[in-house]
Amino acid sequence: MQRNWWKWGDPNEIKHINDYPKLKDMVEERWKMRLREDFFPPKTFELPTISEKKKNLIKDIFASLHPKKISFNEDDRLAVSLGKSYYDVIRIFNGGGFVSPDMVITPNTHEEIQYVLSQASENNIYIIPFGGGTNVVGALSLDNLAGKGEAICTIDLRKYKKLIQLDEEHLTATFETGILGPELEKILNAKGYTLGHFPQSFEYSTLGGWIVTRGAGQESTYYGKMEDLIERIKVATPIGTLESNTFSHDASGINVLPFFVGSEGTLGIVTEATVKIKKLPKNYRWIVALFPNFQQGSKYLKELSQSGVKPSVVRLSDANETSLFSKMATSHDQPGLLSDLKKEAQKFILQWKNLTEPCVCIMRFPQGEFSVSSQIIFAKDLIGKYDGMVAPNTIGDKWAESRFKLPYLRDTLVEHSIYIDTMETLVQWKDVQKLHQALTKELNKFPAFNKNKGIFIAHISHIYPNAACMYFTLITPMLKGREIEQWQELKELVTNIIVQYNGSVSHHHSVGADHQKWYKLFTDALTLDILKSIKNKLDPKGIMNPGKLFS
Amino acid sequence: MQRNWWKWGDPNEIKHINDYPKLKDMVEERWKMRLREDFFPPKTFELPTISEKKKNLIKDIFASLHPKKISFNEDDRLAVSLGKSYYDVIRIFNGGGFVSPDMVITPNTHEEIQYVLSQASENNIYIIPFGGGTNVVGALSLDNLAGKGEAICTIDLRKYKKLIQLDEEHLTATFETGILGPELEKILNAKGYTLGHFPQSFEYSTLGGWIVTRGAGQESTYYGKMEDLIERIKVATPIGTLESNTFSHDASGINVLPFFVGSEGTLGIVTEATVKIKKLPKNYRWIVALFPNFQQGSKYLKELSQSGVKPSVVRLSDANETSLFSKMATSHDQPGLLSDLKKEAQKFILQWKNLTEPCVCIMRFPQGEFSVSSQIIFAKDLIGKYDGMVAPNTIGDKWAESRFKLPYLRDTLVEHSIYIDTMETLVQWKDVQKLHQALTKELNKFPAFNKNKGIFIAHISHIYPNAACMYFTLITPMLKGREIEQWQELKELVTNIIVQYNGSVSHHHSVGADHQKWYKLFTDALTLDILKSIKNKLDPKGIMNPGKLFS
Repeated sequence: MQRNWWKWGDPNEIKHINDYPKLKDMVEERWKMRLREDFFPPKTFELPTISEKKKNLIKDIFASLHPKKISFNEDDRLAVSLGKSYYDVIRIFNGGGFVSPDMVITPNTHEEIQYVLSQASENNIYIIPFGGGTNVVGALSLDNLAGKGEAICTIDLRKYKKLIQLDEEHLTATFETGILGPELEKILNAKGYTLGHFPQSFEYSTLGGWIVTRGAGQESTYYGKMEDLIERIKVATPIGTLESNTFSHDASGINVLPFFVGSEGTLGIVTEATVKIKKLPKNYRWIVALFPNFQQGSKYLKELSQSGVKPSVVRLSDANETSLFSKMATSHDQPGLLSDLKKEAQKFILQWKNLTEPCVCIMRFPQGEFSVSSQIIFAKDLIGKYDGMVAPNTIGDKWAESRFKLPYLRDTLVEHSIYIDTMETLVQWKDVQKLHQALTKELNKFPAFNKNKGIFIAHISHIYPNAACMYFTLITPMLKGREIEQWQELKELVTNIIVQYNGSVSHHHSVGADHQKWYKLFTDALTLDILKSIKNKLDPKGIMNPGKLFS
Repeated sequence: MQRNWWKWGDPNEIKHINDYPKLKDMVEERWKMRLREDFFPPKTFELPTISEKKKNLIKDIFASLHPKKISFNEDDRLAVSLGKSYYDVIRIFNGGGFVSPDMVITPNTHEEIQYVLSQASENNIYIIPFGGGTNVVGALSLDNLAGKGEAICTIDLRKYKKLIQLDEEHLTATFETGILGPELEKILNAKGYTLGHFPQSFEYSTLGGWIVTRGAGQESTYYGKMEDLIERIKVATPIGTLESNTFSHDASGINVLPFFVGSEGTLGIVTEATVKIKKLPKNYRWIVALFPNFQQGSKYLKELSQSGVKPSVVRLSDANETSLFSKMATSHDQPGLLSDLKKEAQKFILQWKNLTEPCVCIMRFPQGEFSVSSQIIFAKDLIGKYDGMVAPNTIGDKWAESRFKLPYLRDTLVEHSIYIDTMETLVQWKDVQKLHQALTKELNKFPAFNKNKGIFIAHISHIYPNAACMYFTLITPMLKGREIEQWQELKELVTNIIVQYNGSVSHHHSVGADHQKWYKLFTDALTLDILKSIKNKLDPKGIMNPGKLFS
């Protein structure tokens, strides 16, 4: 097992805290402390051994699979034991305590997946579908299965990833759902197309994972969330395979496609998906604006969305985020989000008298879209109405360079005893400012956040005519020996405030284990009953991702 | 009972065949016949009498309802017995043979609806939700209930129609779902908004009906189909009330909203809906184009849609439809669809040498939308690529004047022994031309269509990047004494050809009784099982619109 098995991404991309000198200086000054360098996870974990008898039993159950597709290897099992949330990571640092599967099956056809599910159902083996393993809300947590069932089998879908059909005449593509973001885009880009789905986890997450979590990407305001991008799906369930209607927009009764969007592995495995693709933009055009405060910026975005303008990327940083990125910005610091802000835009800020809480808003428009010019004209013209000004747009490209790099920084900070977590919600425009203020106020007096020493930054990441997705990042020194409680208390505090302002439990991270409490509180009883009746039908033995969502 | 109880719409709008002199001349010449004037429906129907004992029993069951809200009156029952399909009408002419409900309940609160459903479920009374009664595929047919159950109760929802909330800040409006199209638009228009949902039945259909049939309107290419326009719903079911998630675009598990879209009254009654509204366009801009044939026109529309252009109205008439409307067009003939075509556009056609099958395409764009100018420029520039030419756009306004008038003409034709029916489907672009040709070929040799004497016209009514909605109208003299068989044979022929080219069972008319055979054939077994398990959960006694869809 490699030293860094638990870390995000490409080992070559991993940086040391000294690679972010400005950030290091800033937090050390803020917290009047030296960043610890003595915080490491255990080199390995002892997983429960699987007896030969049990192995043979399992091999018998899945006798039609090639033996190489079933692994009881500890490294293989460990690698799929957890997702990528702060809670996942901090438990690793704290010596484990998480449950691992007994085996990993790696199918590469729909028939194999269907076979595994059918056999597992007959033999009471729990099935945990594993896409990219990037979930940050405990969707892969097996804690509730400790000591239950015959065996826990994780299905690693990453070898099930072929293009089935690229239909250039109708701008659709059908894929096996274990395909990773870059693999999918490479295939589409080669022919001049894109799906346009770019979550921050893009490099390590899968099409199937995006679907069953109702994911959004950084460009979903233009391209649509995952539920908008699917035309048709094929699903393997414990009792058999089904396919949704040919078209997502027919009037041929109830379409079952949406039943599986957001199903988080509880009903079956979405094995094939026909997605709507678009022509690959030739280039992008950026607009960067500075607003005097978050409220004016969010009013701007509300009017923009209600006018029908759809930037692909849209990100309105609050004053804290704007300031943090401005301070971090040097040519050496990575991630360089808004790193040119200091050099170029800061002089605008300085020129701007009386400006105490400037907020930067970056917007990107895909070029080639016939209406992009009128969108840009409209969007630029509107900035003044909300007391904003146009800023240099070079920082847009800088953002694009580092758009998938932030997860690396998270791991680096954790290694230096810094708590860092992100949360997000969809909230009506009228509550955007109120929620932001309430979180600021409550966090500033919250012990686990070190009161006002914690860093709380927020941005709006997606816009709809009626609502905005607000995305929050919390950073503060770890409470030594109370790392898990600290995480729990902050998750609890923030989510309670979110739902108090009628924010959704999640806009794109999904429910997982971490949001389940609020999901059950805010989903009405009859809805839960309906979902259970579908579950009972498709998964009568309750083997699919047990205990998640409504079950 | 009025003489015209079965007819479409406003009695003042009803015309005689002599009001359409050109059409009359044309069909009489084509069919070498005088149009009969001796074909009338019975003046009344004898409905089964409900005994006083049964009435009292029912009154007891629904004791909490005000007695005036329960009617056993024959006129009231007859008025909700049928929809508005050709089959519905021809059965009236043929002396009935349809089943009527035993009573009509007219609730006007959600609580009353919930009460009726709960009581009905406990007492095995069938419930038929009735919105506007405009369905054209037998959705209101009670034939399968003859002699079954304790009683059949139709719930007429047209008095349940208040605005609950107009949220101008978030561009949503919440209505009770019995509200008719014009009532809904009047409320929204007064504040400067529109829902943008204008089916041909607009004047007499309800919000709830649009939702449970997955309806589309004439402007849905821009505004979206009903499934795109809903943010949230409240539903009364036999076992209680439920509400969907606050947001249609969250990631908080599976949203049950889509379970009820297209449910056709089988699971409960959608009682409240929060819909997405848009600013009312100040005006419209038309583009009218003429293409040398249907294929070039449809290729044009495919590229238009794939480029992201979304006209609100889009209608590409095939050569037959173009020719028919051109011939019908005089200032006196109604409906005056494309009635200026003769005066203005025909000279273009004449100038256009070698043109044997010109097809007219009308497109309307809502003005005020920031990108309308670039959309129009793009759409106009593209016409030449497909050998089309821009035609005078005055005929657009003419279309708008008469957009809801065609159902009146249908009734007039039936009274003169003319069969006229419409069918529609969503079909991939690659199959548009093939389906059109196959239908033309098969109809031309089909006895029930009087072979090549029948009039078959088609248009594309909605466009998507991957598919088009094709809309067909069939007109031919009735086969005397075989009117019902003629309808059945033509429905069978056309639908069989549609599904042969992978067209959907319906794009917006829904399944009803008439499409159920194909719906069951083309929906996979497991999907039907899931739907049944939801049905069993929400409607354990099977009282909701029994026998429809999957049940």
